[in-house]
Parts: sequence; structure tokens; C-alpha cells
Amino acid sequence: MNPDLQNTISLLARTPGALDALLRDLPDTWTLRNEGEKTWSAFDIVGHLIHGERTDWMPRARLILDFGETRAFEPFDRWAQVRESQGKSLVQLLDEFARLRSQNLDELRGWNLQPEHFARRGRHPALGAVTLSQLLATWAVHDLTHLHQISRIMAHQYREAVGPWSAYLGVLQCAGHSS
Amino acid sequence: MNPDLQNTISLLARTPGALDALLRDLPDTWTLRNEGEKTWSAFDIVGHLIHGERTDWMPRARLILDFGETRAFEPFDRWAQVRESQGKSLVQLLDEFARLRSQNLDELRGWNLQPEHFARRGRHPALGAVTLSQLLATWAVHDLTHLHQISRIMAHQYREAVGPWSAYLGVLQCAGHSS
Repeated sequence: MNPDLQNTISLLARTPGALDALLRDLPDTWTLRNEGEKTWSAFDIVGHLIHGERTDWMPRARLILDFGETRAFEPFDRWAQVRESQGKSLVQLLDEFARLRSQNLDELRGWNLQPEHFARRGRHPALGAVTLSQLLATWAVHDLTHLHQISRIMAHQYREAVGPWSAYLGVLQCAGHSS
Repeated sequence: MNPDLQNTISLLARTPGALDALLRDLPDTWTLRNEGEKTWSAFDIVGHLIHGERTDWMPRARLILDFGETRAFEPFDRWAQVRESQGKSLVQLLDEFARLRSQNLDELRGWNLQPEHFARRGRHPALGAVTLSQLLATWAVHDLTHLHQISRIMAHQYREAVGPWSAYLGVLQCAGHSS
């Protein structure tokens, strides 16, 4: 397998387990609270990751392989999880994310992508031409963006509790660029 | 148990498992690379967390309980892991971190802290008076600061690979406040 793809899949395969180890059965203080109006909680983010597994990464990769630049990607709904996560528990969402991610990676491995595939281009509705290679790298960094965001949202809940130490805690200085 | 302490311990207990799920057997591209000169890799950070388990959190909590403000904390050595992690593998460090954290939390639970203990004050060498409650909250947010940093360091390795998507990926905009 292409070494970059191997690195990407290694990371993508670990995110559900890492979020599970961090969040499962954690008190609601950490998982259901957000950073204020129109911001997300860890619960919201797991729902967002699920929506991405269904509608973003693999469908876009298929579009690139099947249609190249002739068909633009569907825009991604960043608030879909509000509707889709309704009535579900965090444990259900973690299980669903793990299942979908695993299915998607099985399918991706099964494509047996060759060097020439990674340079194929598709059309992003706002960014223009993007390659399959960039899409796959973005899938991995998107996981990391949300891990980064989850750690910041959780730290936010203890912003006052740490007292004078807040000056030393980098996560509390993060300006919320990943919200 | 005090509900704040319960929340804090819930999080502290999960960090070793979350880092293990994320990092164990991940390719070196993700775990050994840093963000440039004088910055840390994920490997370095696990070593730093181990050093904190040995010399920072519990020793400082004991100082507060035993000596109050009469004895200042030892300054923390932020580069100790360079020496202490030498010759070890990431897997060894992850195991060591999990073992030390678990021992420390067992001891902390065994103290059976009462409401009056949390307000007790100690003396930080730079910050001045701090309470036991603030120290324990800081221990948890310190974990989150480093989870935040690890996600940023890992994302940095794909900074170029994501192409035009970099504009949408918050973790790539993070100015490194937690280095």
C-alpha cells in the first residue's frame, strides 16, 4: 500500500478508539457542555464525525474517482448532527462512529488505490480543484481538528477552577479557531 | 466523594487509555516528529506526563496537606523527559504512564479528602498562593493541554498534504500556545 495512505489509515483507524477511551461514561460535565451559544459539545462533535462518515469523505472520494472535476461535491451540512443525534446517547454515537469508520476503511482498503489515483482531481464547491490525496489527508487532519476542539471544550469547563494556573495552560489560551 | 473531585478523577483516569488508543503502534511519522526546533513530539509529551506523575501533582498535593504555605513547591523541570525517556520506546512510556497514573489515583482516593481540605493553600514558586482544589483541577486541564498539543503536532505533519483545505482545518491555525 502507498505509504502515505498507510499513515492516513493508521490514524483514521485509531480515532474512534481514542474518543471512546476518553469519553465513554465520562460525567456529563465534560461531554454535554459546550463553550457558549452556537458552539459544540463533545457529544455534538461525535455526531458531526458520524455525519462525515456518511456523507463527506467516502462519497467525495467516489465522486473524484468516478467523475473527476465534472461533478462538484455536495456541500457539507455542519449542523446536521443536531437533528441526527437527537434522542441518542453518547455511547450509541461512539458505537455508531466506530462501526461506520471501520466499514469505510474496509471499503477504502478494498479499492486498492494505485499511484495514479492519488493525483486525480475533483471539484470542491468553494475551494475549487482538489486531489484525492488531499481529500484523504484532510480526512485525517479533520479528526485531529476535532480532537483538538474536544480537549479545548473540556478544558473550558474548568477555566475558573484552575485559578492562577490558567496562565500556564495553553489549551485555555486557544482562541477557538476550530469551532 | 466530592463531586468536583469525582469529575476530575474521571478525566484523569481516562487520559492514559485515550493516549494509548491514539498512539500505540502508530507510525513514527505521527509520534516521533515535532513542530520544529525546541518543540515536542507526542513521544516527548508522554515522557513529560510521566515526569509530572512522579514529581509534580501528588508531591505538590502532599506539600499542601502537610505544610500549607510554609514550604513552596519544587519548580517543575519541563525538559526532564529528554533524559528520562532516553532508550525507551513509546509503548514502554505509555505503559509507565498508565501504571503511575493508576497508582496516583488510588492514593488520591485513599486520602478520603473532606470539604475543608480543598480550600487549603500551598505556595507555588511563581504563582504564589494556590489551593488544593486548584491544583487538582489543573492536573486535569494539564492533561487536556497536552492532548490539544498532541493533536496539533500530529496535524502539523500533514500541513502541506491537505492542500487548499488547510484554511478550513482549525488545528492548523493554532498558534502553538501549548508548546
